[in-house]
Amino acid sequence: MNDPDNPDKRSRWLKDSVTPDLVQFHREKKVLYTGDTKYQHAEIVDTYSFGLCLVLDGKIQSGEFDEFIYHESLVHPAMFSHGNPETIFIAGGGEGATLREVYRHKSVKKAVMVDIDQDVIELCRRYLPTFHRNSFDDPRTELHFTDARKYIADTKEKFDVIIIDIVDPLEAGPAVMLYTREYYQMLKDRMNPEGIMVIQSGSCGWTNLHVFTCIVNTLKTVFSNVKPYQVYVPSFVDMWGFTCASDMLDPSRLSKKAVTDAVSHRLNSKLKSYDGVSHKSMFTLSKPLRRKLAVTRKIITDADPVFI
Amino acid sequence: MNDPDNPDKRSRWLKDSVTPDLVQFHREKKVLYTGDTKYQHAEIVDTYSFGLCLVLDGKIQSGEFDEFIYHESLVHPAMFSHGNPETIFIAGGGEGATLREVYRHKSVKKAVMVDIDQDVIELCRRYLPTFHRNSFDDPRTELHFTDARKYIADTKEKFDVIIIDIVDPLEAGPAVMLYTREYYQMLKDRMNPEGIMVIQSGSCGWTNLHVFTCIVNTLKTVFSNVKPYQVYVPSFVDMWGFTCASDMLDPSRLSKKAVTDAVSHRLNSKLKSYDGVSHKSMFTLSKPLRRKLAVTRKIITDADPVFI
Amino acid sequence: MNDPDNPDKRSRWLKDSVTPDLVQFHREKKVLYTGDTKYQHAEIVDTYSFGLCLVLDGKIQSGEFDEFIYHESLVHPAMFSHGNPETIFIAGGGEGATLREVYRHKSVKKAVMVDIDQDVIELCRRYLPTFHRNSFDDPRTELHFTDARKYIADTKEKFDVIIIDIVDPLEAGPAVMLYTREYYQMLKDRMNPEGIMVIQSGSCGWTNLHVFTCIVNTLKTVFSNVKPYQVYVPSFVDMWGFTCASDMLDPSRLSKKAVTDAVSHRLNSKLKSYDGVSHKSMFTLSKPLRRKLAVTRKIITDADPVFI
Amino acid sequence: MNDPDNPDKRSRWLKDSVTPDLVQFHREKKVLYTGDTKYQHAEIVDTYSFGLCLVLDGKIQSGEFDEFIYHESLVHPAMFSHGNPETIFIAGGGEGATLREVYRHKSVKKAVMVDIDQDVIELCRRYLPTFHRNSFDDPRTELHFTDARKYIADTKEKFDVIIIDIVDPLEAGPAVMLYTREYYQMLKDRMNPEGIMVIQSGSCGWTNLHVFTCIVNTLKTVFSNVKPYQVYVPSFVDMWGFTCASDMLDPSRLSKKAVTDAVSHRLNSKLKSYDGVSHKSMFTLSKPLRRKLAVTRKIITDADPVFI
Repeated sequence: MNDPDNPDKRSRWLKDSVTPDLVQFHREKKVLYTGDTKYQHAEIVDTYSFGLCLVLDGKIQSGEFDEFIYHESLVHPAMFSHGNPETIFIAGGGEGATLREVYRHKSVKKAVMVDIDQDVIELCRRYLPTFHRNSFDDPRTELHFTDARKYIADTKEKFDVIIIDIVDPLEAGPAVMLYTREYYQMLKDRMNPEGIMVIQSGSCGWTNLHVFTCIVNTLKTVFSNVKPYQVYVPSFVDMWGFTCASDMLDPSRLSKKAVTDAVSHRLNSKLKSYDGVSHKSMFTLSKPLRRKLAVTRKIITDADPVFI
Repeated sequence: MNDPDNPDKRSRWLKDSVTPDLVQFHREKKVLYTGDTKYQHAEIVDTYSFGLCLVLDGKIQSGEFDEFIYHESLVHPAMFSHGNPETIFIAGGGEGATLREVYRHKSVKKAVMVDIDQDVIELCRRYLPTFHRNSFDDPRTELHFTDARKYIADTKEKFDVIIIDIVDPLEAGPAVMLYTREYYQMLKDRMNPEGIMVIQSGSCGWTNLHVFTCIVNTLKTVFSNVKPYQVYVPSFVDMWGFTCASDMLDPSRLSKKAVTDAVSHRLNSKLKSYDGVSHKSMFTLSKPLRRKLAVTRKIITDADPVFI
Repeated sequence: MNDPDNPDKRSRWLKDSVTPDLVQFHREKKVLYTGDTKYQHAEIVDTYSFGLCLVLDGKIQSGEFDEFIYHESLVHPAMFSHGNPETIFIAGGGEGATLREVYRHKSVKKAVMVDIDQDVIELCRRYLPTFHRNSFDDPRTELHFTDARKYIADTKEKFDVIIIDIVDPLEAGPAVMLYTREYYQMLKDRMNPEGIMVIQSGSCGWTNLHVFTCIVNTLKTVFSNVKPYQVYVPSFVDMWGFTCASDMLDPSRLSKKAVTDAVSHRLNSKLKSYDGVSHKSMFTLSKPLRRKLAVTRKIITDADPVFI
Repeated sequence: MNDPDNPDKRSRWLKDSVTPDLVQFHREKKVLYTGDTKYQHAEIVDTYSFGLCLVLDGKIQSGEFDEFIYHESLVHPAMFSHGNPETIFIAGGGEGATLREVYRHKSVKKAVMVDIDQDVIELCRRYLPTFHRNSFDDPRTELHFTDARKYIADTKEKFDVIIIDIVDPLEAGPAVMLYTREYYQMLKDRMNPEGIMVIQSGSCGWTNLHVFTCIVNTLKTVFSNVKPYQVYVPSFVDMWGFTCASDMLDPSRLSKKAVTDAVSHRLNSKLKSYDGVSHKSMFTLSKPLRRKLAVTRKIITDADPVFI
């Protein structure tokens, strides 16, 4: 009578509203945590599809089985574009996996990470050890629990690489003021001249293309080289977009061979997704995406922000 | 940004397939346990709709908020029909709530409970204290972990009241051979002459009416007085059926006043659902149900069992 | 390869949010209509569970397989309490099934029906012939498409039986002002002295008990005899409540035999659900419901309405 | 009260079980057709996410909003690899969109299309005009309703380009024998020496990678040049795989410029997704996919087929 192979006997599901018209249900294996932080509702759920997931306000943020695609794609193009990245600023990135990827680079001497929600970081620290691999405890880590815009306004430090790994700009959400031209200008002021910035820029396949193209267009009013790129992240149910911005560096010009060489010399551990071939592929955008970028005119400002 | 009132931020759901064409999702509060026993997949899930639920093989067995309706309705009509119930036999009833209701009767001297799945009882003992109220530890309780049919075949004991509180007869499931004329005859042989038996008989509203009417019809081939009755149990999404069977006793003849008097004198604690008015109402069947009972001819036997 | 018995190949579902924490999915057979009326979103959907359903703003209003329970229970207790109902007023009742039940009574000479949404009635007329059985075309029918409160304020007519069959009082919905003491007083003024009124009063099992008990309590401030009753309607996933109100008549006093006699003499066709036994059972309320009614104090007024 | 923007008032959903552990619900706009063909359950459903969809046995086959990505990616790499494709064989492709893409090439003189299910083609012809654009009625089209393997076994014709656009090899489904080495050898025998074949090869992201790598490996035992490629198709919730196979031609060697030139000279209409940049990107596989292809050893044969 015991039929562990019958999925209908496993009846708990995690619902993810991808859009108001498309809803996904992931079968749950185990719920490790559920509760409210000061800022959001947080859950750690083990799913059959994507393993352990961090879920904030009902949205899957990262899944154990494919987070490596997202985090390697976020971190390495910018890091390898820089000749010798020593000082790194990370906004967001609560799982600790962005920090983990940063520390694969032997050159790194200091990483300042700012996340508003300490409770989320404590949760990830406890329940998601394969995500952070103890990066929070690395002596080079400086962790601040505050608003990332306020931190940047107050600090006098400058960084080689700036990584913006925050949640999407939901209406009335905390991240709206972290997607404006004014904030990008503030970040640029805290970046060394030969530095580079990378921003997770939301979905770029079909669900919310608008935000992505506005981010790219806005960055172009602040930086000389703005290079959007994308990768497929299964648990996000869409192609995912990122944008590199710099005055001096251009990651799209890195050759396949240059990346392959850098990967083999500059890291202290192996990657699963990123390599020279992937690098070139990520900066090759689809035809509809190229067309949409070409016609976007909107500039995001504090006075005229953008929402999902 | 923290909006605990927005249910969309609570994204975990318990799925219950009422029929292949009607599926319910209950929002989950907390999962207390999930695992496989030797016989089935078992979960203890806290839901917003019905509180703590015992879920076996993906089906809700009992919900904290309305289990009192089911268990009071199962136990008391038979118990009050008997003048002085001292020895009780319970088949199934893993949550311990049937036992709890039995012990409300001051007359009870011994209760033998037989459930095949020890793991389920251990789970309920640990996670569902308001269901069993420590009835398992009552010195009058004799607990056996074996097949209820085998137990009845082997024992020499006789009982005043027999309560059959087992899962529905699913095809290829463990309970099929506990719903046949042969088994009912075996039970009758272990019942004192002035005894009475009650059987949870499945849904009797619209979802699986067939099993209910077959049980009633089969019992009529074994006992002189067979009295079906029903009550609405919200978490079962249907009217729920029970059947009393006896040669001497007829619960449908108990007057409202007789029940009211018995409730106030023979119990050691208060009831929430059952009283004289409810008793009369439960034995008043709907017109479609009376019509269906009148035309059912099928008799369930070992050679020709019935399934859901 | 063709397996019509595999329900997984029938993939379209109708979602019904019973509460924010309990959602039902009904497998769809066919969608006959979907569109917006001036007042609401309307759909006619054929489901495997309940046959053809009228769905307004995402809520199932009536299902083909069990609408007879609802409509017989709504209409006949009041009609049979009256000795000779000739003039009938119906507010709402767009499917035409309330009108159909009214016309089973040979005594009826005139039925005035007022529904605000003409499009819904046209839909039901076209797609739900077994619901209305052409009652709209009966020469005794007088149909008005306007607000039922406005109609009652303007008319000078008086009626023997008044049947209120409108949607639940959703916040900001059109029905809120049709559930107040002031409106009940207006209705009473248009009722003959020996008349009786019945009001569909929403769920009375567990999902929204509050509205039901408030309606009963409010009616008690306007009428001498107020008698709540209930019946189980499967497609509503709950016990359903109704309330009769009158100064002269008391349906709860009708004996089983009186109802049986009236059913066989006063109707022109057969009923499926209602009879003398059902009548007595409907007016027997559950213990938790009796308790809740006893403690409700709220009176619904224009200045202090009630919502679901 | 009329709020057409509230999605909760649109309550009909199309369920798509991506895997047993991941289920998607698409909000329905309209159901245009539902019924059984001789081979499968077929539906034409208009969804808010992807427009008009062909649904076979509960699985979305194509969505109006993104079918162009799938069909352009399937057809053009093989067609442009051939210098002058005149005779084309298509297995499957019931929507007619594969045929539509074929006819964009001015060189085409004849297209033989074989699909087992005539009813599906009649449905698509009627309900999906933007998919087929009347290609079925093109005088160059030769349509056969029979098993594609039987047709290939019986014909004596030879073709320049062979396009296999059939459903995935579900266990006990009709397509299993169309994914074996023996069938690929039969197809090769019906291909001109400088011909090329392309096979839709299922998902290649994460859901069913196994089938994709087995197809590639099997084709390598029959053809000298086997080139897998992939593209993201949103409505398939995954990266989608294709494989070109030929003895003489190698699409992966086409330069971006060669594709750009061919697109502008050899077609009679514009494309939305495919161009020189996309061509190069499609043949650039992800690192995990390259790794998996490198270690796959299984060869699919009639005696040892593969299933999803």
